[in-house]
Amino acid sequence: MSEAAPAPPRTSREERVLQIIETARAKRARFRDERITLAHGAGGKATQTLIEGLLVPAFAKTGDGVLAQLADAGSIQAGGTSIAMTSDSFVVKPLRFPGGSIGELAVNGTVNDLAMAGARPQALTVSMILEEGLESEILKREVEAIASAATAAGVEIVGGDTKVVERGAADQMYLCTTGIGVIDSRARLSTDGIKPGDRVLVSGPIGEHGTAIMLARNQFDLDAEIDSDTQSLWPAVDALLDATGEQLHCLRDATRGGVASVLNELARSSGVSIVVNEAQVPVSPIVAAAAELLGIDPMYVANEGRLVAFVSPEYAEAALQALRRTPGSEHAAEIGEVRAEPPGMVMVATAFGGRRVMDQLVGDPLPRIC
Amino acid sequence: MSEAAPAPPRTSREERVLQIIETARAKRARFRDERITLAHGAGGKATQTLIEGLLVPAFAKTGDGVLAQLADAGSIQAGGTSIAMTSDSFVVKPLRFPGGSIGELAVNGTVNDLAMAGARPQALTVSMILEEGLESEILKREVEAIASAATAAGVEIVGGDTKVVERGAADQMYLCTTGIGVIDSRARLSTDGIKPGDRVLVSGPIGEHGTAIMLARNQFDLDAEIDSDTQSLWPAVDALLDATGEQLHCLRDATRGGVASVLNELARSSGVSIVVNEAQVPVSPIVAAAAELLGIDPMYVANEGRLVAFVSPEYAEAALQALRRTPGSEHAAEIGEVRAEPPGMVMVATAFGGRRVMDQLVGDPLPRIC
Repeated sequence: MSEAAPAPPRTSREERVLQIIETARAKRARFRDERITLAHGAGGKATQTLIEGLLVPAFAKTGDGVLAQLADAGSIQAGGTSIAMTSDSFVVKPLRFPGGSIGELAVNGTVNDLAMAGARPQALTVSMILEEGLESEILKREVEAIASAATAAGVEIVGGDTKVVERGAADQMYLCTTGIGVIDSRARLSTDGIKPGDRVLVSGPIGEHGTAIMLARNQFDLDAEIDSDTQSLWPAVDALLDATGEQLHCLRDATRGGVASVLNELARSSGVSIVVNEAQVPVSPIVAAAAELLGIDPMYVANEGRLVAFVSPEYAEAALQALRRTPGSEHAAEIGEVRAEPPGMVMVATAFGGRRVMDQLVGDPLPRIC
Repeated sequence: MSEAAPAPPRTSREERVLQIIETARAKRARFRDERITLAHGAGGKATQTLIEGLLVPAFAKTGDGVLAQLADAGSIQAGGTSIAMTSDSFVVKPLRFPGGSIGELAVNGTVNDLAMAGARPQALTVSMILEEGLESEILKREVEAIASAATAAGVEIVGGDTKVVERGAADQMYLCTTGIGVIDSRARLSTDGIKPGDRVLVSGPIGEHGTAIMLARNQFDLDAEIDSDTQSLWPAVDALLDATGEQLHCLRDATRGGVASVLNELARSSGVSIVVNEAQVPVSPIVAAAAELLGIDPMYVANEGRLVAFVSPEYAEAALQALRRTPGSEHAAEIGEVRAEPPGMVMVATAFGGRRVMDQLVGDPLPRIC
């Protein structure tokens, strides 16, 4: 989207829908579910309710509100150094899939959360929960995958832990990786930095990781294969910071819940509106076909090597070129822009000139994709 | 042990056993098992083979050898600050037990690994793997336990992650906590620092955590209850550093595999011998009774709030008094000393004047105690 399109007039039904959603959004999230469901781990509405309604209120009491910022990584002052710290668990099924495996994902996922905080990934810990009876060959393969991905991403593995649970008490193996990195002096990233007028960029075609997992599970008859996009995004962030400095306002990697979930989370927390120009969103034909078969929008399908960047309009072109020069992000695209109204909402300008709300993900159409 | 007792003469059988064990120890650990067993997670011989034979060789390639030190926490230079970083998974069963729960354990376990590196615990991440169908009340209770333990230990929770797996793919909940802290300027701790003559201290009665878990599982008919020792050990470390400074040579918390496993690991990595005076090891009657019923030595039973300290002989008394003034470590005791020969071995001087080898733990008599 090189210029802001004028908003088409709203219909009265659309007005009402918007009003209902806005009212719901103004309320503080409350966690009221009696039991945990797969949706609580899917990155959408239920996850948000769990995080904002239970975890943040309890954990924020332990400190100065680092957690309440709900960033991909927390930032800490340690002996005068600004450090980013982030942690993720990985339960992907199957363990191996085209383009990657749980070990590679565990490294890149954590490295990317650091990169999104503007921190050069430095050190990583790896904790493993193994199921009794796991073949050692499978473990060795993943240990090698972890080591290779760490080397590729330039992070040192400095520690870890191994637990074994009885047969049936876990599904082969789960990994938990935590990373730290020093926040780059060029970075001025925060959700507060997002401003009306900012352009929204994605670093490549969306939904490839989630689609790779679905196809690896043979969930439907689609004679196709696509590689996961799993990769370290630090080179892309490094290039963006070089090209735009503090004009780069916010970064997120679009993992569980896809680009749509990231945009919804940021629209809500920054109190802005985001308009996505559907025709400009890069989607490969296989991803589009798989999403159609599953009946979901590729915007909700997970990525593990794609970021969403918010940049001042004057720097959007420089940011785009910087991304396109970075290996792995050659097909970056500008997909939309930030507006002031209606706050908290993500809208899609369709290829046919219409407009619709792109709401938060409900339920979990693709469990255990990371 | 206030004075070094002269070593009793060895029998020829003992000589042969020592020789066999020493030869085995000189060999590099090789991971050759075809499948993962519970023993690989028990903290004993199988765990050591997995770590030294597979994980360290693979992961050490990613950096400058932080991992190869096999400390409880890795130390990292981040922007001129020396930071300790450590990670642990928790799969304890049952989730609640007298004196604590998985949430409290997850905080204290990680905080203690930082403290053992001489680092004041500062920030923590908490990742959760939840089983679909888990009652929200159970989750809320553990979230509160995590928050309270973090507040008590003075650490801020700065991030986390939640994954949900299908019913049957996990056992209620698993936690993974990672912590960082700045290494205290008074601390000069390392396995290399252990020297013949050093006194060995424990910070309180041993085996109470493992015993509390066993009793909570009703594994045997013992009409008794004992509280887990789970607690933050930073106050004890702080007091030790104050009293002894760089005369404090090495610290370990005696978790899985108990005090015996810590001593074996350190004797091997430092190339020294450690003699434990059995009569001086503090053990409560309930722990002694439970261990006898299970047929294991309390020295192999897990602790979650007890440390083992190695101190110069001239500072042993000051260290002991400092521990005894610290709430939670009032019953600290000196239990042995370091000798030069035979390297890599832990010996027990029994109450009857005999001596025996205290070898590494084989198998897993108490699975999932943390």
